[in-house]
Amino acid sequence: MVDKPLDILNKSLNSPVIVRIRGGREFRGILLGYDTHMNLVLDETEELNDDATVKRKLGTVILRGDNVVYISP
Amino acid sequence: MVDKPLDILNKSLNSPVIVRIRGGREFRGILLGYDTHMNLVLDETEELNDDATVKRKLGTVILRGDNVVYISP
Amino acid sequence: MVDKPLDILNKSLNSPVIVRIRGGREFRGILLGYDTHMNLVLDETEELNDDATVKRKLGTVILRGDNVVYISP
Amino acid sequence: MVDKPLDILNKSLNSPVIVRIRGGREFRGILLGYDTHMNLVLDETEELNDDATVKRKLGTVILRGDNVVYISP
Amino acid sequence: MVDKPLDILNKSLNSPVIVRIRGGREFRGILLGYDTHMNLVLDETEELNDDATVKRKLGTVILRGDNVVYISP
Amino acid sequence: MVDKPLDILNKSLNSPVIVRIRGGREFRGILLGYDTHMNLVLDETEELNDDATVKRKLGTVILRGDNVVYISP
Amino acid sequence: MVDKPLDILNKSLNSPVIVRIRGGREFRGILLGYDTHMNLVLDETEELNDDATVKRKLGTVILRGDNVVYISP
Repeated sequence: MVDKPLDILNKSLNSPVIVRIRGGREFRGILLGYDTHMNLVLDETEELNDDATVKRKLGTVILRGDNVVYISP
Repeated sequence: MVDKPLDILNKSLNSPVIVRIRGGREFRGILLGYDTHMNLVLDETEELNDDATVKRKLGTVILRGDNVVYISP
Repeated sequence: MVDKPLDILNKSLNSPVIVRIRGGREFRGILLGYDTHMNLVLDETEELNDDATVKRKLGTVILRGDNVVYISP
Repeated sequence: MVDKPLDILNKSLNSPVIVRIRGGREFRGILLGYDTHMNLVLDETEELNDDATVKRKLGTVILRGDNVVYISP
Repeated sequence: MVDKPLDILNKSLNSPVIVRIRGGREFRGILLGYDTHMNLVLDETEELNDDATVKRKLGTVILRGDNVVYISP
Repeated sequence: MVDKPLDILNKSLNSPVIVRIRGGREFRGILLGYDTHMNLVLDETEELNDDATVKRKLGTVILRGDNVVYISP
Repeated sequence: MVDKPLDILNKSLNSPVIVRIRGGREFRGILLGYDTHMNLVLDETEELNDDATVKRKLGTVILRGDNVVYISP
């Protein structure tokens, strides 16, 4: 059985994910939604430092899929 | 229930949002409109410094979605 | 009521706008036209220095939408 | 009346234009043709130095629209 | 006989692959899925150092195809 | 009469062209073919130094249109 | 007669090719397949140093067309 990328996103709804974007920045939040461009809606979002400590709390954010390197459920 | 990214934008109309664009610059303004490319119309827009103080008042701006990293309602 | 980005451009026709492009350069001119890619036609265009003084007068220019960061009417 | 970007290009056929591309380089030539991607055909093309003096004569060139920042008729 | 890129991905399902992304970073994992944009689902993913030692264990990740340089089954 | 960019390419078939790509590198070769993306087939291709001397002989190459800045017949 | 870029790729199947990607890296391998995006399948792939010596043996790789600068059969 094949797991399509969007299937994995679907299974991850309402669960925490880590998202790395171009330039190396990372965000952690609860995945509330997504679309076919991999634009993401995260809740309780935290921007992380390199050592995975919290740099900034951002609440709800819409992250553009264009900048995503990977999403880790 | 899933929150699509554009649904969240729709719910944020006429409310303040923070927008971070590529390169790290941030803008704060009232979301007046958007389209499916995530081009945004902001009113009472302020460009912010890294410490979230106001760098420049810009009034109404049309921000191109291509440059958006995230939108935080 | 929602203001679509292209509606705002339409309302700004024949009025002065400021356009910032990637890399930080800014232009000021009278908006004569645009298309759905946000390619713009400006008249009496001036390229601006960081302190908003005029660096160079360019007359009529066609600015490619791809490079636009924001347009401020 | 609105001047669409491609209308302005059309009016500029067989006339001199200045084209700035990403990275800041500028070209001056006679506009012989274009297409909807803003790919341009220039004749008697000269690459310019920052002070607008001629750096190199290039004759006919096809300039890809992707790299264009602005075209000034 | 020709091996289309997506055929090779299909044959590599449930097998280990190495993925290099723009900027030179490399990941190693079990290929669980992919789509036509070369978005990939990897399991037991490890981010690698330049000397191919493990830098970080990431578990399941969705890697955006946009950033992929090559995939080596 | 308007010369579309692809018309000029068509007229240049089997003739020498110079191609500059992003980053400033230049190639000289005989244009054997092209497609609508401006992907090019060059024969007897030479990569050039800044002073237009030959840096390397490459024979036949397929150059991706995405990287092309200009083509000079 | 015109040689379309994809025709040349087709003629090069099962033959060695050199592929340069953005950033200057080069790969040498046997072309096993390709698609219309110029995604390539190479076998017996070697990553090359600037002096064309072998830096690393990679076996089979799928190279994304987006990063290709040129392919030399």
